[in-house]
Amino acid sequence: MLIERPQPDLKLAAALFDSLERATRRGSGIVRDSFGAGEQAAHDIMRAAAERLGLDVSVDAIGNLMMTLPGRDRLAPRIIIGSHLDSVPQGGNYDGAAGVVAGLCVVAALRQAGIQIRCDITVMGIRAEESAWFDIAYLGSGGAFGLLDPACLGIPRSDNGKSLEATLIDCGFDPQAIREGRRLLDPSRIRAYLELHIEQGPTLVAEQLPAAVVTGIRGCKRFRNARCVGEYGHSGAVNRAYRHDAVAATVALLHHLETIWLLQEQAGADLVITSGELYTDPAMHGPSKIAGETHFVVDVRSVSDATMNAVAAEVRQAAARIGDSYRVAFDLGATSDSPPAVMDSRLRAGLGSRLERPFEMPSGAGHDAAIFAKMGIPTGMIFVRNQHGSHNPNEAMRLDDFGIATRAMLGLLLEFPLP
Amino acid sequence: MLIERPQPDLKLAAALFDSLERATRRGSGIVRDSFGAGEQAAHDIMRAAAERLGLDVSVDAIGNLMMTLPGRDRLAPRIIIGSHLDSVPQGGNYDGAAGVVAGLCVVAALRQAGIQIRCDITVMGIRAEESAWFDIAYLGSGGAFGLLDPACLGIPRSDNGKSLEATLIDCGFDPQAIREGRRLLDPSRIRAYLELHIEQGPTLVAEQLPAAVVTGIRGCKRFRNARCVGEYGHSGAVNRAYRHDAVAATVALLHHLETIWLLQEQAGADLVITSGELYTDPAMHGPSKIAGETHFVVDVRSVSDATMNAVAAEVRQAAARIGDSYRVAFDLGATSDSPPAVMDSRLRAGLGSRLERPFEMPSGAGHDAAIFAKMGIPTGMIFVRNQHGSHNPNEAMRLDDFGIATRAMLGLLLEFPLP
Repeated sequence: MLIERPQPDLKLAAALFDSLERATRRGSGIVRDSFGAGEQAAHDIMRAAAERLGLDVSVDAIGNLMMTLPGRDRLAPRIIIGSHLDSVPQGGNYDGAAGVVAGLCVVAALRQAGIQIRCDITVMGIRAEESAWFDIAYLGSGGAFGLLDPACLGIPRSDNGKSLEATLIDCGFDPQAIREGRRLLDPSRIRAYLELHIEQGPTLVAEQLPAAVVTGIRGCKRFRNARCVGEYGHSGAVNRAYRHDAVAATVALLHHLETIWLLQEQAGADLVITSGELYTDPAMHGPSKIAGETHFVVDVRSVSDATMNAVAAEVRQAAARIGDSYRVAFDLGATSDSPPAVMDSRLRAGLGSRLERPFEMPSGAGHDAAIFAKMGIPTGMIFVRNQHGSHNPNEAMRLDDFGIATRAMLGLLLEFPLP
Repeated sequence: MLIERPQPDLKLAAALFDSLERATRRGSGIVRDSFGAGEQAAHDIMRAAAERLGLDVSVDAIGNLMMTLPGRDRLAPRIIIGSHLDSVPQGGNYDGAAGVVAGLCVVAALRQAGIQIRCDITVMGIRAEESAWFDIAYLGSGGAFGLLDPACLGIPRSDNGKSLEATLIDCGFDPQAIREGRRLLDPSRIRAYLELHIEQGPTLVAEQLPAAVVTGIRGCKRFRNARCVGEYGHSGAVNRAYRHDAVAATVALLHHLETIWLLQEQAGADLVITSGELYTDPAMHGPSKIAGETHFVVDVRSVSDATMNAVAAEVRQAAARIGDSYRVAFDLGATSDSPPAVMDSRLRAGLGSRLERPFEMPSGAGHDAAIFAKMGIPTGMIFVRNQHGSHNPNEAMRLDDFGIATRAMLGLLLEFPLP
């Protein structure tokens, strides 16, 4: 008997990406602010699509969108296909949303082919994965498992200053769930978590491959609010010996990070170090002034906790030494940390075997998949080739590549290797 | 016959500093915006004081305030005592204004003592010395000698974007004088120019001296609008080989400036190098992004033109080399230049001999005196000790120190050494 294999619905995907783009473009980039109007617009688009597909739709206490295709055994632990629907400020159309669109394309294919697998499949539109808005990543997935420190409710949104708690209440969600550490999802009732995401680096473009299976996710240790305080002065009238130059000291520290990075690389460690925000105070600085203050971020990522801890310790030592030498004070503040995560070996193999040219790589960026893995849930991720990097307006994923990765995920679901 | 020597009127000085402070404080600092409300308030205070002293008051075509005590021979070339009345944004109360107040105290002392020297003495409240507002220094003194490039009329004010030309018209002044290069002052009719200014560095505080005679004024060569353009990307997902990191490249360039500085110092050159403005784009940057762009200033100062030219050439070479190595493009733009200036040796000697503990030093900052010196006018400057540097809200000049420097200037006028 010849059975035509179901195929993901790429017309649906194209229509959804188009709707997302039109609803959330602000100027040159995409803005889907966590728990804000942009993210909500994306949720509304996904929900409407799920309702058209006849899925069971619900929203949990903190706003995660659950769109479920019932299985033959409603009591069997379910499979979740998810990703986030928020973006960084002035981000691109695909980071996050592609994983939710992939989930909908997969269940649409099953429904169109009249195939009902044994367990429920829930496509999950996860809230607030990006840390750009509330200075903390994984609010949606971490909150779903009751993992958040209740203190996070006091964090002000980076642009409008409104606390997470007040923002949740404005959205009609329940901050009490976070305060109590309530579990909105039971890990023992989740058979597997799958996530499709655009690759955020240039590797697949360079390798000329449409997709890759992810081996693990780099953790992140970030000095989010580092500061250097010196003393303002006249740029011409203060000789070197009398300066308290915050820019010169910050430049010395950030330049030293390259030395740390090179030494770790030479020792074979996996590592990236980035300072993506760096600024003097626009209300105080001037072209003929020595700068009295800088603000900056240092973002350290590795698949190894030990490497991140060693680098963070070196950054603190260097800041103390350079601060003394430049007669300024560094205040690095606490780090915000996300642990590294390892993907499930059977899911890796299952996804890899469904790619024409199997290719594996670590994920440099964090993903909600890391939270599911941390909860002991078998977790698999697939990357789609993407031009121009992510977290910028120029993200460009080809629908053909998206189709190849989504097809691998659909194939895995049809012959699911786990008990 | 015993003659009581006239003394500068320090009560007048205290009252004027107090009025200036009250009229132009905005938040924690002083704001006397060039050709704006803050500068005008300072002009109004000085003009009212001059009228109370019975001086001849006039305003030239571009707003410089001329307050004249007539001499015995009105046709003899006059002496000008001047300084500027504008400030940087969030500056202090004394930078500039102290020199105009000193001039008024000197002529008040002469008037009170009934002394009329041979030539006119004009106290000049000079416009727009600071480059913070129109990206060009010495608009007032340069304009008075017809030295300005008419293209400067198109420069937008740094905060509100209004052109210099439109701003001048709004103030009731005449941009045509700048366009024609009209001379509002005839250098051959000026016998000498004297300027009192707070020291803008910490030398006199460290040396425990109330005042110093200035030997010369450092010139300035400034990359005012330097930029580095790379490519935004995800901080975790792009390995070193694929990065176009504008912050990393800018940090490498600015750190290299220290090496240039140290080598020049070792060779005995007079030099300071400062980057007082440095920032990623707040609309585009993020804690989990590689920065695709930076903006920064590089300010190079020396008493030697040759040193400044050599450093500027090295900065350009380093930017090209570092840009290649980091796969980014530096756009340093043109420099804005102020030449160094040498003070008149007889005036230096005359001022120094009137200090209890004579002390000479170069001026690290630029002053209107440099323009008068450039015009071939014998020029003398005296510095007053000042706590906490200048161009910041914490400038703190003691009235006693101001009195010592003003007394030296008055003494020089009474026994003027030039023909």
